[in-house]
Amino acid sequence: MRIPLDRESPIPLYQQIESFLRREITSGGLPPDTRLPATRQLAQSLGVNRITVANAYADLEAHGLVYTRLGAGTFVARSLGGVQTDYAKSETIEHWPSWQQILWHTVRLPAQEERNRLSALAPEPEDLISFAGGVGAPELIPADDFRKALADVLRRDNINALGYGDRAGYLPLRATIAHILADQGILTQADHILVTTGSQQALSLTASLLLRPGDRVLVESPTYPSMIDVFYSLGVEIVGIPVDENGMQIDRVEVELSTAKPTLIYTIPTYQNPTGTIMNGARRRQLLTLAAQYDVPILEDEFVGDLHYDGHSQPALKALDQEGRVIYSGTFSKMLMPGLRLGYIVADGPIYDRLVEWKTVTDLGTSDLIQRALEAYITVGRYQSHLHRACRIYRQRRDIMLAALEKYMPLDCHWQPPHGGLFIWLQLPEGLSTNELYPIALEEKVKFLAGSVCYPGEKSYRHMRLNFTMHPPHQIEEGVRRLAKATRRYMDIKR
Amino acid sequence: MRIPLDRESPIPLYQQIESFLRREITSGGLPPDTRLPATRQLAQSLGVNRITVANAYADLEAHGLVYTRLGAGTFVARSLGGVQTDYAKSETIEHWPSWQQILWHTVRLPAQEERNRLSALAPEPEDLISFAGGVGAPELIPADDFRKALADVLRRDNINALGYGDRAGYLPLRATIAHILADQGILTQADHILVTTGSQQALSLTASLLLRPGDRVLVESPTYPSMIDVFYSLGVEIVGIPVDENGMQIDRVEVELSTAKPTLIYTIPTYQNPTGTIMNGARRRQLLTLAAQYDVPILEDEFVGDLHYDGHSQPALKALDQEGRVIYSGTFSKMLMPGLRLGYIVADGPIYDRLVEWKTVTDLGTSDLIQRALEAYITVGRYQSHLHRACRIYRQRRDIMLAALEKYMPLDCHWQPPHGGLFIWLQLPEGLSTNELYPIALEEKVKFLAGSVCYPGEKSYRHMRLNFTMHPPHQIEEGVRRLAKATRRYMDIKR
Repeated sequence: MRIPLDRESPIPLYQQIESFLRREITSGGLPPDTRLPATRQLAQSLGVNRITVANAYADLEAHGLVYTRLGAGTFVARSLGGVQTDYAKSETIEHWPSWQQILWHTVRLPAQEERNRLSALAPEPEDLISFAGGVGAPELIPADDFRKALADVLRRDNINALGYGDRAGYLPLRATIAHILADQGILTQADHILVTTGSQQALSLTASLLLRPGDRVLVESPTYPSMIDVFYSLGVEIVGIPVDENGMQIDRVEVELSTAKPTLIYTIPTYQNPTGTIMNGARRRQLLTLAAQYDVPILEDEFVGDLHYDGHSQPALKALDQEGRVIYSGTFSKMLMPGLRLGYIVADGPIYDRLVEWKTVTDLGTSDLIQRALEAYITVGRYQSHLHRACRIYRQRRDIMLAALEKYMPLDCHWQPPHGGLFIWLQLPEGLSTNELYPIALEEKVKFLAGSVCYPGEKSYRHMRLNFTMHPPHQIEEGVRRLAKATRRYMDIKR
Repeated sequence: MRIPLDRESPIPLYQQIESFLRREITSGGLPPDTRLPATRQLAQSLGVNRITVANAYADLEAHGLVYTRLGAGTFVARSLGGVQTDYAKSETIEHWPSWQQILWHTVRLPAQEERNRLSALAPEPEDLISFAGGVGAPELIPADDFRKALADVLRRDNINALGYGDRAGYLPLRATIAHILADQGILTQADHILVTTGSQQALSLTASLLLRPGDRVLVESPTYPSMIDVFYSLGVEIVGIPVDENGMQIDRVEVELSTAKPTLIYTIPTYQNPTGTIMNGARRRQLLTLAAQYDVPILEDEFVGDLHYDGHSQPALKALDQEGRVIYSGTFSKMLMPGLRLGYIVADGPIYDRLVEWKTVTDLGTSDLIQRALEAYITVGRYQSHLHRACRIYRQRRDIMLAALEKYMPLDCHWQPPHGGLFIWLQLPEGLSTNELYPIALEEKVKFLAGSVCYPGEKSYRHMRLNFTMHPPHQIEEGVRRLAKATRRYMDIKR
């Protein structure tokens, strides 16, 4: 088997092998039950380490594309692409137009696929305690006040609240956002702010404006799973930079800037998703210096920047940026209500107008009514007092989860107490996999986000992301107890 | 408050704090009478000595930027709150990073640019009558009923209405859409419907899923301007197919399918934007046959499909499609309220799941609250009676505009009475240009959409698009009178 390998590419060799074989299998070039070459043999013919081939095969197996028969070798699986939808289950794909079949085989979003594959492992029981979510406490949602604000706005503005509105967002809301940001150290004005449908749109819009297929992007590894999918959807190559307790490893950033020549750096510097770490001040300044030196924009994702519980806080990268190098994305989903679907971009320079145009062609603008209602509800003072209340409650819940983990989890599980945000990033002992633990945890009626969905390239399977903000104290305690029980059961099986 | 501090800088920390706050205050980021954090509190969060903060505050006070009220704290002073000019406007492009300069020069959207160029020709006067819009009559917006529906939903669902919701859209709303579509001859189900942020997102989402840079797309020429920009933003080559009184010229479609090999056909078959024409039945069937023969998907944009006033109506292409070849886009913006920003896609086959995934990475979903409110407001019966009322009023307005055009406009201007929709497409005599007429019309306090923005390739400058639904009868009559006057003035100049 001749697999074209690019040894100068930043894509690891095992990934190059894996993606070649994946294409062959999904295209039918390698039909079901074809035996793949033995790892030793393929390694030799490609001139690579045997582990490299074994890793590629393991990845294919994890995605359900191949199966291993002990002592016989590795074979192409019958079902295509791991998780199948209702269509694929009930009908054969061949009934659809060819362009649909091609779409089915080619356009895949890896993080969503990994999630689907995990979901397919076991059904969700009733009375599940899920630590997998990415939002705050539902009881903090100010539903009553917001209802009043909505009614007031509709009475006050009548049909004016039901038109298309300003392309960049409702101006008074943008002014309020500027005031809220001032408190975060970000000096900006309404006409540098673009309102979006949640920060997800802020991020995907910026990425789609700046990136073209074949471009490279630097991201933290692990990172926010949905951004892995955004970059895949744009045909962009992702270069993962490891994260340690001080954030993205900045020396690795410099190496990649000079070799991989990325078009964009995407980072979550504060209470990173999923690791909860905070990039220290020195690295923040170094990152900005590098961005200037290599002329690369930074997309800063501050999804929970102001959910700060203890320790030093750090300024946003945007607050340090005097030259228009940082595009900043923020959201009201975590602090107020996910259902508002309101986020925003802060950008300076020519890119701001481009983003407004891009937003316009994308959806002509986010609901003006919802923007007006939020503006009527939110004042800087109200935001502050809501923030203080949320921080007080979340700090307490973090401590409760940390104490419960300490009390119940087996030794050799590790985590760092986060100083803010929503998540604890927990590591299992070596040789164990949260993907394998996942169905056992569901049996015990507890759920987490398997860390594997957060890796853009080579995956680690030892981590899980736990949300500590969504549930009241007794549920946190009970959930951790269940998680510990599941972990012990899993460890017993593996032993 | 997060203030960026550089502990390795030779500038003393108190000065860094002082200069940050000074910038905040002079830029208006911290408005007058804003209370600054207590020194103890700020010192703690910044990890500095309390004296450092006190020194910074003292410096600000010495410069009259803040004042202290005993026992109450430190506040921003009133005297110096002047908002600074927007630096982006006052500085040259060379101040920005190179990647921003490149963006400025390269990424342009032609339809928006043409619009901007026209807008720059003349200011908009007061008392303008604008026929340029693309929506229905504001007095038909059911603001009161919708307010009640919103309040009911928030009372009924409380915080459940404020979460992320179903990725494909609120299920009961999708079921209602399916019922409404059944009446339009489109047989579908909730699980083939994806709710989007207006039909603009339905269209741009589908285009971005199916197209890659360098691909070709067939569109009517002229067509909906924002879709020209969508295709440009995707780096796609647009092939324009002329429109006659029976819609897209189907023989030209066949030629281009065999030579240009497009990846997608985008069409507005019913009450086309901007021409108002309707594709006849024979061409609809031919188009579907060609789509099958050449294995090319059709993106059908039915933005006003049910606003039908007289003559034969035609089935949607989607209604004729048994094989999953048509992706259908619809909207509530034209019939109900643009500000809802609710549209939808109907798609069959593997593409449906792909679209849901694509939508998820784009913005995680459209506001669930707005979807629930629409679902509470709209029933099939209510939609029908609203539709009947709208059609009755719009038919009358169309007739009033047609009569006014007949009465006032110079000879040699031509138009076809449309059988539905929102627009009349008016043609000036040869040698004249609606771009040249545009500033004269603004002087006469009337506005239209210049046809030039609607052409993807070679432009015609002889047309204008007139909306006949937005204004009450007397304004239509007055607007046409002004338009006729402007046209005569323009003709006199050209003679």
